Amino acid sequence: MSTQSSHQTWGGRFAEGPDARVAAFTESISFETRLAPYDIRGSIAHARMLSTIGVLSADEFGEIEAGLKAIEARIAAGDFPWDAALEDVHMNIEARLTDDIGALGKKLHTARSRNDQVATDVRLWLRDTLDALIDEVKRLRAGLIELAEREADTIMPGFTHMQVAQPVTFGHHMLAWQAMLARDSERLAQIRARANVLPLGAAALAGTTFAIDREMVAQELGFDGVIDNSLDAVSDRDFAIEFVSAAATIMMHLSRFSEELILWMSPAFDFVELPDRYCTGSSIMPQKKNPDVAELTRGKTARVQGHLTALLTLMKGQPLAYNRDNQEDKVPMFDTADTVGACVALFADMAPHIMVKREQCREAARRGFATATDLADYLVRAGVAFRDAHEIVGNCVSRAIREGCDLAELELTTLREYSDAIGEDVYEVLTLEGSVAARNHIGGTAPDQVRAAAARARHALES
Amino acid sequence: MSTQSSHQTWGGRFAEGPDARVAAFTESISFETRLAPYDIRGSIAHARMLSTIGVLSADEFGEIEAGLKAIEARIAAGDFPWDAALEDVHMNIEARLTDDIGALGKKLHTARSRNDQVATDVRLWLRDTLDALIDEVKRLRAGLIELAEREADTIMPGFTHMQVAQPVTFGHHMLAWQAMLARDSERLAQIRARANVLPLGAAALAGTTFAIDREMVAQELGFDGVIDNSLDAVSDRDFAIEFVSAAATIMMHLSRFSEELILWMSPAFDFVELPDRYCTGSSIMPQKKNPDVAELTRGKTARVQGHLTALLTLMKGQPLAYNRDNQEDKVPMFDTADTVGACVALFADMAPHIMVKREQCREAARRGFATATDLADYLVRAGVAFRDAHEIVGNCVSRAIREGCDLAELELTTLREYSDAIGEDVYEVLTLEGSVAARNHIGGTAPDQVRAAAARARHALES
Amino acid sequence: MSTQSSHQTWGGRFAEGPDARVAAFTESISFETRLAPYDIRGSIAHARMLSTIGVLSADEFGEIEAGLKAIEARIAAGDFPWDAALEDVHMNIEARLTDDIGALGKKLHTARSRNDQVATDVRLWLRDTLDALIDEVKRLRAGLIELAEREADTIMPGFTHMQVAQPVTFGHHMLAWQAMLARDSERLAQIRARANVLPLGAAALAGTTFAIDREMVAQELGFDGVIDNSLDAVSDRDFAIEFVSAAATIMMHLSRFSEELILWMSPAFDFVELPDRYCTGSSIMPQKKNPDVAELTRGKTARVQGHLTALLTLMKGQPLAYNRDNQEDKVPMFDTADTVGACVALFADMAPHIMVKREQCREAARRGFATATDLADYLVRAGVAFRDAHEIVGNCVSRAIREGCDLAELELTTLREYSDAIGEDVYEVLTLEGSVAARNHIGGTAPDQVRAAAARARHALES
Amino acid sequence: MSTQSSHQTWGGRFAEGPDARVAAFTESISFETRLAPYDIRGSIAHARMLSTIGVLSADEFGEIEAGLKAIEARIAAGDFPWDAALEDVHMNIEARLTDDIGALGKKLHTARSRNDQVATDVRLWLRDTLDALIDEVKRLRAGLIELAEREADTIMPGFTHMQVAQPVTFGHHMLAWQAMLARDSERLAQIRARANVLPLGAAALAGTTFAIDREMVAQELGFDGVIDNSLDAVSDRDFAIEFVSAAATIMMHLSRFSEELILWMSPAFDFVELPDRYCTGSSIMPQKKNPDVAELTRGKTARVQGHLTALLTLMKGQPLAYNRDNQEDKVPMFDTADTVGACVALFADMAPHIMVKREQCREAARRGFATATDLADYLVRAGVAFRDAHEIVGNCVSRAIREGCDLAELELTTLREYSDAIGEDVYEVLTLEGSVAARNHIGGTAPDQVRAAAARARHALES
Repeated sequence: MSTQSSHQTWGGRFAEGPDARVAAFTESISFETRLAPYDIRGSIAHARMLSTIGVLSADEFGEIEAGLKAIEARIAAGDFPWDAALEDVHMNIEARLTDDIGALGKKLHTARSRNDQVATDVRLWLRDTLDALIDEVKRLRAGLIELAEREADTIMPGFTHMQVAQPVTFGHHMLAWQAMLARDSERLAQIRARANVLPLGAAALAGTTFAIDREMVAQELGFDGVIDNSLDAVSDRDFAIEFVSAAATIMMHLSRFSEELILWMSPAFDFVELPDRYCTGSSIMPQKKNPDVAELTRGKTARVQGHLTALLTLMKGQPLAYNRDNQEDKVPMFDTADTVGACVALFADMAPHIMVKREQCREAARRGFATATDLADYLVRAGVAFRDAHEIVGNCVSRAIREGCDLAELELTTLREYSDAIGEDVYEVLTLEGSVAARNHIGGTAPDQVRAAAARARHALES
Repeated sequence: MSTQSSHQTWGGRFAEGPDARVAAFTESISFETRLAPYDIRGSIAHARMLSTIGVLSADEFGEIEAGLKAIEARIAAGDFPWDAALEDVHMNIEARLTDDIGALGKKLHTARSRNDQVATDVRLWLRDTLDALIDEVKRLRAGLIELAEREADTIMPGFTHMQVAQPVTFGHHMLAWQAMLARDSERLAQIRARANVLPLGAAALAGTTFAIDREMVAQELGFDGVIDNSLDAVSDRDFAIEFVSAAATIMMHLSRFSEELILWMSPAFDFVELPDRYCTGSSIMPQKKNPDVAELTRGKTARVQGHLTALLTLMKGQPLAYNRDNQEDKVPMFDTADTVGACVALFADMAPHIMVKREQCREAARRGFATATDLADYLVRAGVAFRDAHEIVGNCVSRAIREGCDLAELELTTLREYSDAIGEDVYEVLTLEGSVAARNHIGGTAPDQVRAAAARARHALES
Repeated sequence: MSTQSSHQTWGGRFAEGPDARVAAFTESISFETRLAPYDIRGSIAHARMLSTIGVLSADEFGEIEAGLKAIEARIAAGDFPWDAALEDVHMNIEARLTDDIGALGKKLHTARSRNDQVATDVRLWLRDTLDALIDEVKRLRAGLIELAEREADTIMPGFTHMQVAQPVTFGHHMLAWQAMLARDSERLAQIRARANVLPLGAAALAGTTFAIDREMVAQELGFDGVIDNSLDAVSDRDFAIEFVSAAATIMMHLSRFSEELILWMSPAFDFVELPDRYCTGSSIMPQKKNPDVAELTRGKTARVQGHLTALLTLMKGQPLAYNRDNQEDKVPMFDTADTVGACVALFADMAPHIMVKREQCREAARRGFATATDLADYLVRAGVAFRDAHEIVGNCVSRAIREGCDLAELELTTLREYSDAIGEDVYEVLTLEGSVAARNHIGGTAPDQVRAAAARARHALES
Repeated sequence: MSTQSSHQTWGGRFAEGPDARVAAFTESISFETRLAPYDIRGSIAHARMLSTIGVLSADEFGEIEAGLKAIEARIAAGDFPWDAALEDVHMNIEARLTDDIGALGKKLHTARSRNDQVATDVRLWLRDTLDALIDEVKRLRAGLIELAEREADTIMPGFTHMQVAQPVTFGHHMLAWQAMLARDSERLAQIRARANVLPLGAAALAGTTFAIDREMVAQELGFDGVIDNSLDAVSDRDFAIEFVSAAATIMMHLSRFSEELILWMSPAFDFVELPDRYCTGSSIMPQKKNPDVAELTRGKTARVQGHLTALLTLMKGQPLAYNRDNQEDKVPMFDTADTVGACVALFADMAPHIMVKREQCREAARRGFATATDLADYLVRAGVAFRDAHEIVGNCVSRAIREGCDLAELELTTLREYSDAIGEDVYEVLTLEGSVAARNHIGGTAPDQVRAAAARARHALES
């Protein structure tokens, strides 16, 4: 009997082994070895429980635990002979265990199935992944808060429709980015809580005939509880969808930061500079310094979104309980974890090193009649209804465009052609500093509000 | 001056009005009138606050409030002349107000912008939508729990890979559906909490120069707090994405229920029947009774998933703060709300009326060697290692296939050809009732576990 | 017997009518009336064929044709009482026909089913839709070619990574847009050809027992042939997917044009201007002139992409032949047609009116060392290996950045510090005009090439 | 100077090398080595052209060609030291060439850029990929035609809504699958034609100052022509989208075949059997034989659809010409090619080995009143209007359900209670064989039509 068939998990009923192409098509070992440490942790917890309920003796458990730890060490050392003929990470480890410790290894799979086993592995992996991601998002948020405080007084144009709208402070803009990420942090924490329940014990789909103690296993593995229904335990992939959906949202946020960084580094804007080490050049144009990290992050947003489409489509219409389709959950989940992890980490690295070109930012804010709204508000305070004030200022802007100057450069007499509510003091509200300082309420762009908001954000981050 | 241009929101700066095709392309009134009651509520709260801070007098506020309430009544009565030339729901209402109460109406837009106004409207609408959806999901869950209790003892085949795997109870299966929806309930509640914060006060993007009191407005409108950053307030659409993602997950769950209902109603399965009123027939084939609700629900799952793709793609790479692209958030959000709302409501209607054909379910479980795992477990208890037991049972199944009979129909002597650990008592573990009753641990399919799980589920639902 | 039940298509087998919510859920009349003229055309062709094969008499056919034409006229006049209780466009028309001409109307549905009927309607509608779209894409292409010729000599910066790369001509850039649309034209034509085959005759799924003449019907309706397999005829939705995929690609192209228009109209670039009638303003900021059409088009790209996701997800895993899920194909298809049609038409309107600010374009090209590659090529011609030339020029750029000047402003002696292959004639290759003129091969940006390419494009368009 | 910096493509302008994490983030060598043979082919054609126009001497070309061929041989032998520090496949090969043949290697990159180089590589790769896929789709179609002929007379139930609709022949069903794939073949051929044009010569984005001969390169590389616009040449990714869209459609088709195979192998249907070598078993349930290939294929459909979402999202809103985002096109394209290639190949392997259980198929067709439509058509021929006939048959079916029998088992007197147009000969039209034979027109399910259609399909395949 060949090594393969002795470990083949379903030998008895089959008259022939799998076709070579089928074996290559169905194996999962090529993409799931990252589950190995979790598989071993889960197996040890399962075996310990089996010994508690008398299915294994204490000695048998000891041998199995030692055997699994030896395998774990070999895997960690990169010295484990993964074999695609053994299909998946579970069978590779079990087969090796049986080779190492003998027939006792064949008892490990009592009272479980690969269906609940893989669900357990993946949830353990996801928990670690989420914990690491939560930390990196926090690091990025801390960097943005720091940058916001540094640039709380820096004036730049705020844009709507990519037209200059009103002056804002650079720090205020950075805190908008931070606010997006704060929601991401909250989402990740909620997903972690919802995912952290034990599927093991569901066996193939219906539970097992052995008197297992699921709470004991849950506790040993750090789960907050057990999944309440065995069919649900093996068929649920909500946690994968939730994770990838949250990751797609994080990436969407980073894609917006990226778009702005790319524009701000373009000579058309020239608002910021990044250290050379975060940029790359061109093979043909010697002068180029390209914001590749931001561009790739924007591009990788599409990739994660594709994974979300894949997972939702994958699960649609699947009858219970387990179908082999589900094996396709792993590549999107793993690639999402790698992608969002790398992007967040790089942004956390870069954020504190964004060099703001304060003069250019200020100069750009002076273009585009950024303080027109301030003039309208001035008129309202002088008793003009807002809609009328809006019309008057619109006419002033038209005039300034025709004269090729800024609003603040129109003569008082000219301005008063449009409304005699305008007085000498109008020029104060037309300054950039006056404009930002006047938006002095919670959520507003005034430098003092930015500093207060940064303090609140830091407090939230640390709590 | 024409009515249109007198209400045109941006007249002053423009030398010509919009091209007719542009006007038709950019209007939003054709799809957003459902926001009107929320727009009015928001405007009243805003005006009240303006009167508190002295921008409006008490009398002015009174007039505005009365004017808005009159408009609200007309809208509710279906008697409001929506005008696409006025672009959107906000301008329609404001223009009408100014027509009704005179120049005072032009003061209402002080200290706000359509950017924060629409964000407020949508969040108010979404909150109501979520509350209604949360209730319907609960009603569906209650129906499934009831059905689970009714069919706690009904035996059916559990499937993996659409092959008969092990016998389960119908009630257990219904509780798997319920468990999916319980996660949906939790997600919806978290999304509601995260969305329930006030954007108003952000104005166009930077806040306003008026000394507004945002907390007051938040309190009047039932928000839990104010959005902390004005740029984020007008650019954030996370709430839309979160809602549609959760809705897509609900739909995915319903699509799985649908797939099973469709199969179970097919003559190939014949497990359940639905009342005629939940089915439709054929224009050509007189005998047909089709599970259209389930099929359409499965189809509409695709539609909601499409909306999620649309929203994530929409937001990707958008620079801050507001871009007109964002207007495209509404159709997917509204259609998602309508779709998921209708599907959940119909399933809640139908669930208690699913008629289970107990005899056919039981008969199907007898096919396909459903108790083979029980035989393997029997061997393990007799001292055989699980992997060896698996191999032995596989050989028994092969034999039964060759002999064209079930496992329980093989003679004891035949079974003992494969293992002498098999004794007379083996036939007890090969019964369906014995099989389900033996899976008697939390999460298992045993009837007693189903009843206990149903009680827990009902308790969770009511708390 | 009520009017409803007399027209109810499946009365006999059912003990009760549909639940009201089910009826509302399953009706399609609210979104498919645009199919009515095609339904009538198809019915007339079908009836004519039935009369040819003797199922109807010539008189009967005459009455049916007259009855259907009368209904068509009422529909066109907006005077047709659509009734949701009659489910769909087919039953509304058939029921009305029977009311109008009596029992004879009940013969019309002989030898067909709604499955093949709706497939026929949709293909006829799609053919008209494609023809109209093909025309509009051509009109847009013609506008771009015209613009390209007008601006064949206008120099602007070419960007990669949003960094200034090399000078290009504005006309060359417009022809890049045109080239994308030329591929779209080709795709649309191929999809039209593939979709233009007749499903009628498939009946419900298997064909009919009547001796129908499908070729005759195909010819009358202008189809190129008949669908060769009845199961395929009623289950195929490839044409919908192909159309929406091609539309999503068109929209993606328009989204790229939009992104560039939005940037070019931003004060940071200030390359182009659009007439006021293609822009909108702000309710709060009186100075704003926003590129809303471009922004909405960019946003609507997401919408069409969502429809593509919906359609592919819809069809995935559906067993043959017809499932009610398929009714969900229409909303995405129709909305795609409306969306892409409106966007292409507006771009076709706008393209010839794009006003290029030639001075600003030229000035922007002068920034960012756009002719650095020309310097490297100069060195190669002087015998330096390209990689070495690249390195030399990189050093020259570094020097220019430090000195705060352009490459052409560095002294010859300074340049020669980096390579003594540089001579006095270097300054010629550093000019913008020299740079673009030198790229004088097919596909290159030289003005002469642009004019030649525009001529080729016009020729292709007209052939 | 380190090896790295000597080959670094953009050294001169940069004060520091890339951050290690940035290098890891931006490299593409880990996923694009499959482009290497195409890169070398393209480089040789480019160098040959450079020698023709005098940029390289004949000797220089000879040395470069020999050097590149040596590298190609090492790569083919798995003996090439790919170095992630050299970023991508192009720089790895060029750097190695320069190490191998000296400074001459630095001349190879004259008159091109990585932007047009990679576009060329990918198009060459895609052409080969499409050719291989086109062949495999044909092989699958041939297998289905063969199966259709073998089972032209086999009767099975045709389903709509998963209810038994009308009897069809198994061969007819197989030809429906074949018809879907025939459209796929046509699409693939059109995509190949559209993609087969040369981008090289576009250089970075604007063309080059060297007097290149693009037609010569196109001819050597087997392209049908050159891309007409340099900006389009480096920014276009339509070919990737088209390919993945067509692949998603193929996968959608396979997912439908898969769904049916999975159902047909379920004991509920039991219509077909697959050889053991195309199935797998269970680690816990010894009796299981699972249709894993079909399930995984259905799952992988989601994966390819995710890639399509990714690519469309990737390109949306990108300004011209090249942005680093585009590097993200490769993983989805390559994985799509691998996935669809493997699935089509496996289906082509399996199709001829599908074993049809003719008795079970026939038996299932006898359930569910499959010939009810035949009865209605019988009444029409007897002069009853179709709608009335439909109603009569519906009543007969109701009666049969109440009596627990089939239509053919109702007494003539009973049938005549519903219509006296029914005579003794009615029982002939109620047989399965009579039913299928009667659908004897082009596209119908009659065995003779199936044989004729199979012949036409084979002819189309071979032409």
